Amino acid sequence: MKQISLLGSTGSIGVSTLDVVARNSDKFEICGLAAGRNADQFVEQVKQFKPKVASLFDRSKEAEVRERLAGLDVELIFGEEGPVKVATWTECDLVVSGIVGSAGLVPALSAIEAGKNLALANKETLVVAGELVLKAAQDKNVAIIPIDSEHSAILQAMNGEKKEQVRKIILTASGGPFRTFTREQMEHVTVEQALNHPNWSMGNKITIDSATMMNKGLEYIEAKWLFGLDTRVEVIIHAQSIIHSMIEFVDTSIMAQLGIPDMRVPIAYALSYPDRLDCELPSLDWSQLSRLDFEPPDYEKFPCLKLAMDALDAGQTLPTVLNAANEIAVQAFLDELISFKEIPEIIRMAMQNHKSRPVTHLEDVLEADRWTREEARKLISVAH
Amino acid sequence: MKQISLLGSTGSIGVSTLDVVARNSDKFEICGLAAGRNADQFVEQVKQFKPKVASLFDRSKEAEVRERLAGLDVELIFGEEGPVKVATWTECDLVVSGIVGSAGLVPALSAIEAGKNLALANKETLVVAGELVLKAAQDKNVAIIPIDSEHSAILQAMNGEKKEQVRKIILTASGGPFRTFTREQMEHVTVEQALNHPNWSMGNKITIDSATMMNKGLEYIEAKWLFGLDTRVEVIIHAQSIIHSMIEFVDTSIMAQLGIPDMRVPIAYALSYPDRLDCELPSLDWSQLSRLDFEPPDYEKFPCLKLAMDALDAGQTLPTVLNAANEIAVQAFLDELISFKEIPEIIRMAMQNHKSRPVTHLEDVLEADRWTREEARKLISVAH
Repeated sequence: MKQISLLGSTGSIGVSTLDVVARNSDKFEICGLAAGRNADQFVEQVKQFKPKVASLFDRSKEAEVRERLAGLDVELIFGEEGPVKVATWTECDLVVSGIVGSAGLVPALSAIEAGKNLALANKETLVVAGELVLKAAQDKNVAIIPIDSEHSAILQAMNGEKKEQVRKIILTASGGPFRTFTREQMEHVTVEQALNHPNWSMGNKITIDSATMMNKGLEYIEAKWLFGLDTRVEVIIHAQSIIHSMIEFVDTSIMAQLGIPDMRVPIAYALSYPDRLDCELPSLDWSQLSRLDFEPPDYEKFPCLKLAMDALDAGQTLPTVLNAANEIAVQAFLDELISFKEIPEIIRMAMQNHKSRPVTHLEDVLEADRWTREEARKLISVAH
Repeated sequence: MKQISLLGSTGSIGVSTLDVVARNSDKFEICGLAAGRNADQFVEQVKQFKPKVASLFDRSKEAEVRERLAGLDVELIFGEEGPVKVATWTECDLVVSGIVGSAGLVPALSAIEAGKNLALANKETLVVAGELVLKAAQDKNVAIIPIDSEHSAILQAMNGEKKEQVRKIILTASGGPFRTFTREQMEHVTVEQALNHPNWSMGNKITIDSATMMNKGLEYIEAKWLFGLDTRVEVIIHAQSIIHSMIEFVDTSIMAQLGIPDMRVPIAYALSYPDRLDCELPSLDWSQLSRLDFEPPDYEKFPCLKLAMDALDAGQTLPTVLNAANEIAVQAFLDELISFKEIPEIIRMAMQNHKSRPVTHLEDVLEADRWTREEARKLISVAH
């Protein structure tokens, strides 16, 4: 029985992970749960999955939650130290991190340092601290298994293959809801439009990242860390999100992973890796699927994608700045403080104003992250 | 240095195999060559690749060929015993069989019985004697590595995977030159039209088989033998021949192999399996590829596909009958003795008139093959 600690249990990845665990209760058990502010859902999850440890970020709900869970054999933790405790719980075999944003970094690093294998949906962990995280994983000999459908596809395409025979990674992108928008239409994008992703049902932050294509930029950086910085990564737009990504090998053969766009598939793969779980999910229906489309990305219409590539090229603290500025800008857009097209502008200015430095300790990352958030907030308030 | 015996050296597969060997002369050497009737090309190949043994089926060219190759250190054989000698040559590590039709069976079986690994482009070997061939390969512990692009794709998709986690094989088919023809148009198909395959450049027999979709039927039977008779195999039409085939696993994930339609890719894979060769072939150009299309096969328009599935279901000598009747009917069509739509009619009648029996020895297969050829010729002459 594999013991799982789940971080971000009430988010989109968390809920899907619990669905997979519930369907495979003969194989997996939840030993730890960490949630943010959704106390009601947290209470229900603790009741259903009976973890040994459970944490809620929101301290204000402590009294209420303790009362509702009275009598259950579970260690309850409130406040920000919770995720790290859950991630390093002694009995845990695998930590699934579905925390949104750079808040996922410290718990993920703690899990690795405690020798836990890590199933990672939180792409910011690698984006902001790829070097530190990979070094720690190597030192502790733990596996980092990606949950992102794209990186899961790449991992699957690497099955039984040799790293030195990879010619390039082909990262597919849906293009988001504005793929067919003209530049003029993009001037007047609303929050509602941006939250309406054509293929995937996800949380708000990642849905906006898909609309700006920053999501693909973050995945580009993540892919480089996971599969080697010197690996060529090409981005192509594939509107239907059926091919989740591909690898081309030295013999020109391309291995692709395809399927219905359902996060439970890569989650199940991460939980059972390197085995596959019988998912009882519907197969791709070829009688309904008549075509798959491909087009090159438009870097001018989606400047965030290019900014991410530039940040990785520049290295040092720049990817951290990119990510933090993006988090602040996306929240400001969701709060209707800035327009859609100001998101890349804020990020670009933050990157320009930043004094880049090498990343040797976690503190370098956290310091750059703090500086950027303040800078991005300033840029937003100056502009409005 | 891997020593290769090549059967069918002047055919389409043979020529492509020699191209791959020539590009990788640090890894492969041709120790044996077997050709049919093309003496000129045979002489050139022997001069270039300097095999230790070489055979030509056409005895009438013996004197001329011996004279043109005088002075070369090569054992020359003429007549029908040649392919078996080449296939069982002591130094040979891998036999590549690119012989067309059921003539490939005996040399392939001889190679296996001599303990040689077999790279198999001749699909008839498995179609007419799957059970015998697989049993022999198991007894001798030799690998059968498919060269057909579809079966190579399936082999690649199986890399690092477990057989018991396969849900189904998805065999892609181009649909051939008549995919978009109406049934009426199909009544008046000419030899020239049938020889004009949209994607692949191949020999005449296989090109006609692609036009009738018997080729996909033979591949269906071959896939069942190679990957397990109880494996579900679904055929889908994919006009561009970019996805060469796929496997769906129990978790609904589908692994696909894609690439340019060039037989040198699966040939290189078979030669270097399980490694990959740096092919110096052009990559698939995603800036040129804008879509991939899929549709279900039309079994009424292409009865040969259904006949093949029926023959495998019936088992015993029926697949042998299917194949032999098809060979005779295709030749009759190429000779303009019968029309295109009579090809499946001849095959169906031969299958109906045949008294099926179990296959326990090679002789059962050869006897059914002989009976069918005679029967098919009779059916053709009666009808015209």
